[in-house]
Amino acid sequence: MRNIQLIIEYDGTNYCGWQIQKNGITIQKMICDSIYKITGENCSLIGSGRTDAGVHAYAQSANFITESKVPINRFARALNSYLPKDIRIVNAIEKDLKFHSRYDAKGKIYEYRILNNLNGTALDNNRVWHITKKLDIDKIKEACKFFLGTHDFTSFSSVNSCAQNKVRNIGQLVVTSEEEYIRYKIKGNGFLYNMVRIIVGTLVEVGLSRIEPSTIPKIIQNRDRSTAGKTAPPQGLYLKEVLYK
Amino acid sequence: MRNIQLIIEYDGTNYCGWQIQKNGITIQKMICDSIYKITGENCSLIGSGRTDAGVHAYAQSANFITESKVPINRFARALNSYLPKDIRIVNAIEKDLKFHSRYDAKGKIYEYRILNNLNGTALDNNRVWHITKKLDIDKIKEACKFFLGTHDFTSFSSVNSCAQNKVRNIGQLVVTSEEEYIRYKIKGNGFLYNMVRIIVGTLVEVGLSRIEPSTIPKIIQNRDRSTAGKTAPPQGLYLKEVLYK
Repeated sequence: MRNIQLIIEYDGTNYCGWQIQKNGITIQKMICDSIYKITGENCSLIGSGRTDAGVHAYAQSANFITESKVPINRFARALNSYLPKDIRIVNAIEKDLKFHSRYDAKGKIYEYRILNNLNGTALDNNRVWHITKKLDIDKIKEACKFFLGTHDFTSFSSVNSCAQNKVRNIGQLVVTSEEEYIRYKIKGNGFLYNMVRIIVGTLVEVGLSRIEPSTIPKIIQNRDRSTAGKTAPPQGLYLKEVLYK
Repeated sequence: MRNIQLIIEYDGTNYCGWQIQKNGITIQKMICDSIYKITGENCSLIGSGRTDAGVHAYAQSANFITESKVPINRFARALNSYLPKDIRIVNAIEKDLKFHSRYDAKGKIYEYRILNNLNGTALDNNRVWHITKKLDIDKIKEACKFFLGTHDFTSFSSVNSCAQNKVRNIGQLVVTSEEEYIRYKIKGNGFLYNMVRIIVGTLVEVGLSRIEPSTIPKIIQNRDRSTAGKTAPPQGLYLKEVLYK
């Protein structure tokens, strides 16, 4: 028995998210199908977490148990030969049998991209949240610091979240702007359902001067989803890295 | 009567190129349709030149004559509201009636992107030529210089090219590499049909050590398409700028 970790890049545009579901094509399903073609086995592919429809990944992490004898350095290319071009196995790594890509994850890094201009973008159309009204970056930066540290993020999680404990730690939240692009980098020990997108949506309200930076601590304290901003759309979100020990 | 110049960004993936044709959806057709919706006029939209199916543009230039009274600063947004998201009018500019986006063009700048790695890219899938074998960048750079200046580029134009005069001037051809990406920037006073893609395809043969850099002058002198390399695929090519006086 072997335990294989896959590092996966995908364009989420054409998929109903990561997780296998009855109706709709998902990334997990596409990879399981290609593993079956290589190994002849119906595997259980464990992802580090779900991503929603339209969300992208540079380095999703997943693992599966197999009896296959395929050499580890051939796995990625073999799987890629069966996968559609918008899903790529970037690397395949032999792990010991205890490794679990969800339970062993110590944190994640996400990026969120906004295009702040009048006419949008043809070439980055499914890759950014296009916002026409000018955002105040200084206000957004001021608001960011209130998210850092350990908080109960109930206000920043979907009401559909099943997590019982909503306390999470955010170690880094950085906003940079280059020409018309605004990028958020956010690193945490874990994220609730829609948490990054609600944080970004709230920071956009700050950038539009509808929420003052100084009210963020109060919104966190409220533990009430309705007091935070809208959920940012999925196509601007990228899972950049899953952190392990 | 007014003469309006449009600067157009597009993702060529889902179109049969720029030029209107009987079978297939083209970028020119989509823009003419949206002009009709704004002005009620069937316009003749003159592009600076064609781009093939799959080729992208950051700044294609086109112009049309209209009786419309729409203020110039509203044209781009009005057209964008009818255009699909993978075609964007970046700017609309009022020109004098003599301006002709093809005849007045003094040159063009193209970019070509190659991804040189093992497993390809999910997120840039329709944006690069993916080449798995390692390319020798130093050889490619050495070969580039032979293209500079004024030459008969018959060897580097499609046999379907209708141009009678195949002499063109290339003022700049620069190759840069960053991580696994290789980018060509090429500036010329005009380009024959498929010229950029055949130059890039030939330079890839150089990078694979199948053609020596020093044989480029001979290939140019041959004036024989069959002695140059393959035509690079369209999805790596971007029209970056159309140059006017």
